[in-house]
Amino acid sequence: MRAFIVLGHKVPLTPNFSLNDLPGSAGRLDILCRCVTAAFCLSHGIRRDVTVYLVLQNKIVLRFEGASLRHLNPDERSTAALIQKALKAFTERTGTESESTPGIFIASGGLPQVLKRVRDEGLRIYWLHEEGAPMRQAELQPDAAFVLSDHLEFLPEEAAILDGLPRLSLGPLSLHADHCIVLAHNELDLRFGLRPPQG
Amino acid sequence: MRAFIVLGHKVPLTPNFSLNDLPGSAGRLDILCRCVTAAFCLSHGIRRDVTVYLVLQNKIVLRFEGASLRHLNPDERSTAALIQKALKAFTERTGTESESTPGIFIASGGLPQVLKRVRDEGLRIYWLHEEGAPMRQAELQPDAAFVLSDHLEFLPEEAAILDGLPRLSLGPLSLHADHCIVLAHNELDLRFGLRPPQG
Repeated sequence: MRAFIVLGHKVPLTPNFSLNDLPGSAGRLDILCRCVTAAFCLSHGIRRDVTVYLVLQNKIVLRFEGASLRHLNPDERSTAALIQKALKAFTERTGTESESTPGIFIASGGLPQVLKRVRDEGLRIYWLHEEGAPMRQAELQPDAAFVLSDHLEFLPEEAAILDGLPRLSLGPLSLHADHCIVLAHNELDLRFGLRPPQG
Repeated sequence: MRAFIVLGHKVPLTPNFSLNDLPGSAGRLDILCRCVTAAFCLSHGIRRDVTVYLVLQNKIVLRFEGASLRHLNPDERSTAALIQKALKAFTERTGTESESTPGIFIASGGLPQVLKRVRDEGLRIYWLHEEGAPMRQAELQPDAAFVLSDHLEFLPEEAAILDGLPRLSLGPLSLHADHCIVLAHNELDLRFGLRPPQG
């Protein structure tokens, strides 16, 4: 199992945004959509052994479960539409947990709850950080979770929660979050081989 | 210098498509947009030492020059709008070469012309191919160009043109073209370090 935990600092908590303006009115939702694509989409299929957590403003958690995920396409707009649908369901049901479309769950929560859940599932958690140890030389567990931020730096309160986790870096340049996911996947693919089931 | 040559098999040759439907009416233009983002966009800046060639149906070549590129944002829709603008300029000027926005050039042409240009500029050309040699163990030139396809396999006539180029693979799974660009960049970043100028 692999998991990616992405912190969205500006994405709205309601579905009131335009799919035509993901970088603006949707608070850089385009980044989170590309993260979902990078985490799940292969050239011909979906990585079924992956979970993605989008943590919105440390208040709402969108969980994508590869094992049951449906209707996911690689483009940003259709992924944003799935997220908008989840936020709509969450608003209408006044904040109770729900599965808005197959494999997409939305509930109240924040980074501490997600970390606890991932840890309870037996995954080793790594903090992707520009000052971390080079991933290629680092010890890695095949069952791994990675914490990333959107276009903004980790907030001091987030860094305080993550403090103590092993920090890994990917290269000499500061990269987009979705590009970091691609690199982490590839490192695990090369090190541990194909992880069935795929398709 | 680095270059990425991406073959688009279904993207229309005219600007008559909707920005709301990049995977459909625009012939999977979403893939090519993500390739442009992966090639140029860093977390805080643009890779200036990169050129991207989008080869549309082997008839039109869109060339993005990092050194002079402006108005590029990471999201798919805004990149598609720049491409649409280029196709509009090309149509109106009945096929003469033009710079539609700073750093984006459009002209008639196909894969053979692009390969000649890249070779004349002194870049070593690699064919990203699932059956290639593993990139991490391969000899690589810092001035490198990579040929990729969109969601479709290379056509027999394309494979015939590319035959003889060194083939490189990136891992055990079949990946999206933009994810391949991320991995190729990272390999060169790690091997040859930061390539100024950035910003």
